[in-house]
Amino acid sequence: MSTSPKPTRLTLDPEELLAAAVAQAELGAREGGIPIGAALFAGNGDLLGSGRNRRVQHDDPSVHGETDAFRAAGRQRDYRSTVMVTTLSPCWYCSGLIRQFNIGAVVIGESVTFTGGHEWLREHGVDVTVLRDQHCIDLMTEFIETQPDLWNEDIGVAD
Amino acid sequence: MSTSPKPTRLTLDPEELLAAAVAQAELGAREGGIPIGAALFAGNGDLLGSGRNRRVQHDDPSVHGETDAFRAAGRQRDYRSTVMVTTLSPCWYCSGLIRQFNIGAVVIGESVTFTGGHEWLREHGVDVTVLRDQHCIDLMTEFIETQPDLWNEDIGVAD
Repeated sequence: MSTSPKPTRLTLDPEELLAAAVAQAELGAREGGIPIGAALFAGNGDLLGSGRNRRVQHDDPSVHGETDAFRAAGRQRDYRSTVMVTTLSPCWYCSGLIRQFNIGAVVIGESVTFTGGHEWLREHGVDVTVLRDQHCIDLMTEFIETQPDLWNEDIGVAD
Repeated sequence: MSTSPKPTRLTLDPEELLAAAVAQAELGAREGGIPIGAALFAGNGDLLGSGRNRRVQHDDPSVHGETDAFRAAGRQRDYRSTVMVTTLSPCWYCSGLIRQFNIGAVVIGESVTFTGGHEWLREHGVDVTVLRDQHCIDLMTEFIETQPDLWNEDIGVAD
């Protein structure tokens, strides 16, 4: 008989974790890309990997912030104790990643400019923390206002 | 006022489309990788891109068959008329990709050895065709029997 794993509970400071994702979003903005960053942390607070949306930089539609951070962390055997931190509510693509690999906790910089699947993740047992970080909101607000076509392309909204 | 887009309906032969994904799965198997392949087709049957799971080959946990095919297709402005073909029922990560980018139709080689999110996709308006391709079943059955640890790693099942 198998026993259910203990649920993950975030014990780290979400604002501290967010800083790593924000740094990636800012770097993406300076590169002319979509300003969304992410980072994957171990349960003890060690940074496993960080990344950013690189649709523009690499001309690659498959690289969202979360998938880039997940890739940078390399092959892990168990994600239950890890924390995915992202500057923006994760889209369905990235929410699916979090659910499939059983990432235990998610910290979100803001869900004001875009709402993805974080409520769905919560329903499926993920410990979700949604912040309302004004810097994250400002980064996305400016980007969406100045480059709406690129933003719609990135979230699959057709003309 | 916006009007709802017309629903996509698969008008191509699913078995013919599947051949491109199977070829990728077989190539992956010969490379020592996880034998799952995928292909993205335009609505008129043109192949936009194909790919395969490359966790082993590239030591990259972010490359599933569907995400590799999606990347190979490059940046597309509208996925509603496209068809994602995969040898295996798409996991939540790949199901999330399909939903986020509004891929209109999905063809699945088999859902016997693994069931991902294809019913969820159907509920959200995706035209889903599930085949029961014996060659796809055989590829995965042999792989799961001989390399269960690698398979569990790929779908996020911890020990």
